Amino acid sequence: MAFDPASLKYDAQGLIPVVAQDHQTRDVLMMAWMNAGAVARTLDTAQVTYWSRSRAAFWIKGETSGHVQRLVEMRVDCDRDCLLVLVEQTGPACHTNRQSCFFTALRAGEEVQIMEQL
Amino acid sequence: MAFDPASLKYDAQGLIPVVAQDHQTRDVLMMAWMNAGAVARTLDTAQVTYWSRSRAAFWIKGETSGHVQRLVEMRVDCDRDCLLVLVEQTGPACHTNRQSCFFTALRAGEEVQIMEQL
Repeated sequence: MAFDPASLKYDAQGLIPVVAQDHQTRDVLMMAWMNAGAVARTLDTAQVTYWSRSRAAFWIKGETSGHVQRLVEMRVDCDRDCLLVLVEQTGPACHTNRQSCFFTALRAGEEVQIMEQL
Repeated sequence: MAFDPASLKYDAQGLIPVVAQDHQTRDVLMMAWMNAGAVARTLDTAQVTYWSRSRAAFWIKGETSGHVQRLVEMRVDCDRDCLLVLVEQTGPACHTNRQSCFFTALRAGEEVQIMEQL
Protein backbone atom coordinates (compact mmCIF):
# COMPACT_ATOMS: atom_id res chain seq x y z
CA MET A 1 0.00 0.00 0.00
CA ALA A 2 1.45 3.36 -0.99
CA PHE A 3 2.20 5.54 2.01
CA ASP A 4 0.53 8.92 2.45
CA PRO A 5 1.69 11.15 5.36
CA ALA A 6 -1.93 12.34 5.67
CA SER A 7 -2.93 8.80 6.70
CA LEU A 8 -1.15 9.17 10.07
CA LYS A 9 -2.95 10.29 13.20
CA TYR A 10 -1.75 13.69 14.33
CA ASP A 11 -2.60 15.37 17.63
CA ALA A 12 -4.61 18.57 18.01
CA GLN A 13 -1.47 20.54 17.09
CA GLY A 14 -1.03 18.47 13.92
CA LEU A 15 1.99 16.64 15.36
CA ILE A 16 3.05 13.03 15.76
CA PRO A 17 5.76 11.80 18.18
CA VAL A 18 8.85 10.30 16.57
CA VAL A 19 11.38 8.02 18.25
CA ALA A 20 14.87 8.02 16.72
CA GLN A 21 16.98 4.89 17.07
CA ASP A 22 20.56 4.40 15.87
CA HIS A 23 20.26 1.64 13.29
CA GLN A 24 23.67 0.20 14.17
CA THR A 25 24.08 0.55 17.95
CA ARG A 26 20.26 0.29 18.42
CA ASP A 27 20.46 3.00 21.09
CA VAL A 28 17.31 5.06 21.43
CA LEU A 29 18.66 8.53 20.70
CA MET A 30 15.81 10.99 21.19
CA MET A 31 12.12 11.68 20.84
CA ALA A 32 10.83 14.67 18.89
CA TRP A 33 7.82 15.66 16.79
CA MET A 34 6.90 15.87 13.12
CA ASN A 35 3.95 17.31 11.27
CA ALA A 36 2.82 15.92 7.91
CA GLY A 37 5.20 18.25 6.09
CA ALA A 38 8.16 17.08 8.17
CA VAL A 39 7.25 13.44 7.51
CA ALA A 40 7.18 14.15 3.76
CA ARG A 41 10.46 16.10 3.84
CA THR A 42 12.17 13.36 5.83
CA LEU A 43 11.09 10.73 3.33
CA ASP A 44 11.92 12.90 0.32
CA THR A 45 15.38 13.96 1.49
CA ALA A 46 16.41 11.08 3.83
CA GLN A 47 17.55 13.91 6.12
CA VAL A 48 15.53 13.57 9.32
CA THR A 49 13.47 16.74 9.70
CA TYR A 50 11.36 17.40 12.79
CA TRP A 51 8.94 20.18 13.63
CA SER A 52 10.34 22.46 16.31
CA ARG A 53 7.50 23.31 18.68
CA SER A 54 9.50 26.12 20.31
CA ARG A 55 10.44 27.76 17.01
CA ALA A 56 7.30 26.68 15.13
CA ALA A 57 9.45 25.80 12.15
CA PHE A 58 10.94 22.82 10.36
CA TRP A 59 14.01 21.56 12.18
CA ILE A 60 16.46 19.75 9.96
CA LYS A 61 18.25 17.81 12.66
CA GLY A 62 21.93 18.77 12.71
CA GLU A 63 21.61 21.59 10.18
CA THR A 64 23.49 23.93 12.53
CA SER A 65 25.56 21.47 14.57
CA GLY A 66 26.41 19.05 11.76
CA HIS A 67 24.98 16.24 13.89
CA VAL A 68 22.64 15.09 11.18
CA GLN A 69 20.48 11.99 11.05
CA ARG A 70 20.34 10.14 7.76
CA LEU A 71 17.12 8.19 7.47
CA VAL A 72 17.66 4.47 7.08
CA GLU A 73 14.03 3.45 7.55
CA MET A 74 10.79 4.93 8.85
CA ARG A 75 8.30 2.70 10.64
CA VAL A 76 4.69 3.36 11.64
CA ASP A 77 3.11 1.92 14.78
CA CYS A 78 -0.09 -0.12 14.98
CA ASP A 79 -2.23 2.88 15.90
CA ARG A 80 -0.58 5.11 13.26
CA ASP A 81 0.01 7.73 15.95
CA CYS A 82 3.74 7.27 16.48
CA LEU A 83 6.77 6.88 14.20
CA LEU A 84 10.11 5.16 14.63
CA VAL A 85 13.01 6.39 12.52
CA LEU A 86 16.08 4.22 12.22
CA VAL A 87 18.94 6.58 11.55
CA GLU A 88 22.61 6.88 10.85
CA GLN A 89 23.60 9.48 13.45
CA THR A 90 26.56 11.76 12.81
CA GLY A 91 28.10 12.85 16.13
CA PRO A 92 26.04 13.08 19.32
CA ALA A 93 22.25 13.16 18.99
CA CYS A 94 21.77 15.26 22.12
CA HIS A 95 22.34 19.02 22.28
CA THR A 96 24.36 18.34 25.47
CA ASN A 97 26.87 16.47 23.26
CA ARG A 98 25.91 13.07 24.56
CA GLN A 99 25.24 10.17 22.26
CA SER A 100 21.60 9.98 23.37
CA CYS A 101 19.22 12.33 25.13
CA PHE A 102 18.41 9.52 27.59
CA PHE A 103 21.62 9.83 29.59
CA THR A 104 19.97 10.02 33.02
CA ALA A 105 19.10 6.68 34.60
CA LEU A 106 17.11 6.16 37.76
CA ARG A 107 18.97 3.74 39.97
CA ALA A 108 17.98 3.01 43.56
CA GLY A 109 15.85 6.15 43.54
CA GLU A 110 18.69 8.41 42.44
CA GLU A 111 19.37 10.16 39.13
CA VAL A 112 22.65 8.91 37.66
CA GLN A 113 24.29 10.25 34.50
CA ILE A 114 25.39 7.23 32.51
CA MET A 115 26.90 8.85 29.39
CA GLU A 116 29.90 11.09 28.99
CA GLN A 117 29.93 14.13 26.77
CA LEU A 118 31.57 13.33 23.43
CA MET B 1 20.05 13.41 43.16
CA ALA B 2 16.90 11.74 44.46
CA PHE B 3 14.25 11.38 41.77
CA ASP B 4 10.83 12.96 42.14
CA PRO B 5 8.17 12.19 39.47
CA ALA B 6 6.88 15.77 39.95
CA SER B 7 10.19 17.05 38.54
CA LEU B 8 9.30 15.82 35.04
CA LYS B 9 7.66 18.05 32.45
CA TYR B 10 4.15 16.90 31.70
CA ASP B 11 1.96 18.20 28.90
CA ALA B 12 -1.31 20.10 29.34
CA GLN B 13 -3.07 16.78 30.05
CA GLY B 14 -0.50 15.93 32.73
CA LEU B 15 1.12 13.26 30.55
CA ILE B 16 4.63 12.41 29.42
CA PRO B 17 5.49 10.18 26.44
CA VAL B 18 7.27 6.93 27.27
CA VAL B 19 9.28 4.79 24.87
CA ALA B 20 9.59 1.11 25.78
CA GLN B 21 12.65 -0.79 24.60
CA ASP B 22 13.38 -4.49 25.11
CA HIS B 23 16.51 -4.50 27.25
CA GLN B 24 17.85 -7.66 25.61
CA THR B 25 16.90 -7.47 21.92
CA ARG B 26 17.01 -3.64 22.05
CA ASP B 27 13.91 -3.52 19.84
CA VAL B 28 11.77 -0.43 20.33
CA LEU B 29 8.49 -2.03 21.38
CA MET B 30 5.94 0.76 21.75
CA MET B 31 5.26 4.33 22.80
CA ALA B 32 2.62 5.17 25.38
CA TRP B 33 1.93 7.77 28.07
CA MET B 34 2.31 8.09 31.82
CA ASN B 35 1.14 10.65 34.32
CA ALA B 36 3.05 11.29 37.55
CA GLY B 37 1.08 8.57 39.32
CA ALA B 38 1.93 6.01 36.64
CA VAL B 39 5.62 6.96 36.85
CA ALA B 40 5.53 6.41 40.61
CA ARG B 41 3.64 3.11 40.33
CA THR B 42 6.03 1.84 37.67
CA LEU B 43 9.02 2.62 39.88
CA ASP B 44 7.38 1.23 43.01
CA THR B 45 6.20 -2.03 41.47
CA ALA B 46 8.67 -2.57 38.58
CA GLN B 47 5.52 -3.45 36.61
CA VAL B 48 5.32 -0.93 33.76
CA THR B 49 2.10 1.03 34.22
CA TYR B 50 0.92 3.57 31.68
CA TRP B 51 -1.98 5.98 31.68
CA SER B 52 -4.65 4.93 29.20
CA ARG B 53 -5.91 8.08 27.49
CA SER B 54 -8.92 6.25 26.01
CA ARG B 55 -10.01 4.73 29.32
CA ALA B 56 -8.67 7.59 31.51
CA ALA B 57 -7.29 5.02 33.93
CA PHE B 58 -4.04 3.39 34.95
CA TRP B 59 -3.03 0.70 32.48
CA ILE B 60 -0.88 -2.00 33.96
CA LYS B 61 0.62 -3.27 30.73
CA GLY B 62 -0.29 -6.91 30.24
CA GLU B 63 -2.65 -7.11 33.20
CA THR B 64 -5.31 -8.69 30.98
CA SER B 65 -3.19 -10.32 28.27
CA GLY B 66 -0.35 -11.48 30.48
CA HIS B 67 2.07 -9.64 28.20
CA VAL B 68 3.62 -7.71 31.04
CA GLN B 69 6.66 -5.48 31.01
CA ARG B 70 9.02 -5.79 33.95
CA LEU B 71 10.94 -2.57 34.46
CA VAL B 72 14.69 -3.03 34.15
CA GLU B 73 15.56 0.67 34.13
CA MET B 74 13.84 4.00 33.63
CA ARG B 75 15.73 6.85 31.94
CA VAL B 76 14.86 10.54 31.65
CA ASP B 77 15.75 12.64 28.63
CA CYS B 78 17.69 15.92 28.63
CA ASP B 79 14.55 18.06 28.55
CA ARG B 80 12.81 15.91 31.19
CA ASP B 81 9.80 15.66 28.90
CA CYS B 82 10.22 12.07 27.70
CA LEU B 83 11.01 8.74 29.37
CA LEU B 84 12.68 5.58 28.14
CA VAL B 85 11.85 2.35 29.92
CA LEU B 86 14.08 -0.65 29.37
CA VAL B 87 11.90 -3.67 29.94
CA GLU B 88 11.77 -7.41 30.06
CA GLN B 89 8.80 -8.09 27.80
CA THR B 90 6.69 -11.20 28.30
CA GLY B 91 5.10 -12.24 24.99
CA PRO B 92 4.33 -9.72 22.25
CA ALA B 93 4.26 -6.02 23.19
CA CYS B 94 1.66 -5.14 20.55
CA HIS B 95 -2.05 -5.83 20.90
CA THR B 96 -1.89 -7.29 17.37
CA ASN B 97 0.35 -10.05 18.80
CA ARG B 98 3.47 -8.75 17.15
CA GLN B 99 6.71 -8.33 19.05
CA SER B 100 6.68 -4.56 18.53
CA CYS B 101 4.03 -2.02 17.57
CA PHE B 102 6.40 -0.73 14.87
CA PHE B 103 5.82 -3.59 12.45
CA THR B 104 5.04 -1.45 9.41
CA ALA B 105 8.06 -0.20 7.48
CA LEU B 106 8.06 2.29 4.63
CA ARG B 107 10.11 0.89 1.80
CA ALA B 108 10.23 2.45 -1.65
CA GLY B 109 7.10 4.45 -0.80
CA GLU B 110 5.09 1.38 0.17
CA GLU B 111 3.92 0.11 3.56
CA VAL B 112 5.42 -3.30 4.26
CA GLN B 113 4.63 -5.48 7.27
CA ILE B 114 7.96 -6.76 8.56
CA MET B 115 6.89 -8.79 11.60
CA GLU B 116 4.77 -11.91 11.86
CA GLN B 117 2.14 -12.40 14.52
CA LEU B 118 3.48 -14.53 17.36
